[in-house]
Amino acid sequence: MMIAKIHVTLKGSVLDPQGTTITKSLNSLGYDEVRDVRIGKYMEVKIDTTDRKIAEERVTEMCEKLLANTVIEKYEFELVEA
Amino acid sequence: MMIAKIHVTLKGSVLDPQGTTITKSLNSLGYDEVRDVRIGKYMEVKIDTTDRKIAEERVTEMCEKLLANTVIEKYEFELVEA
Repeated sequence: MMIAKIHVTLKGSVLDPQGTTITKSLNSLGYDEVRDVRIGKYMEVKIDTTDRKIAEERVTEMCEKLLANTVIEKYEFELVEA
Repeated sequence: MMIAKIHVTLKGSVLDPQGTTITKSLNSLGYDEVRDVRIGKYMEVKIDTTDRKIAEERVTEMCEKLLANTVIEKYEFELVEA
């Protein structure tokens, strides 16, 4: 069994209104040192396989097809033994 | 300048309906090897400070007060120089 730890984040050029809101909220709570917040998704996908190479190919496909919107998002992942 | 890379995830005992939905979607797309998906949030918070110890205290506070719902979520973070 393997776990794919996947990060899906907005591409750098894409506006992040949710992050802007959190920046303002933190500033108004007194955290004036906060300059910017970017929000992304984090997923842990448990995969029933032992073959790391196949797992990498399959997880890449899953990201491209379902987990990330590659027009505005980028993804990266690492595989760990579960 | 430092960046806090924060992961907010549901505690293990909390049901994750969003993850269950994605598991089913992946299964129905032919990824039968997917056993479980857990969804969390990932945040990058840019902080204008050079003092790692103070930054750690402040980010912990931010997580407790705003970024995580500690009743059902846990958080962890690492600080990197930007």
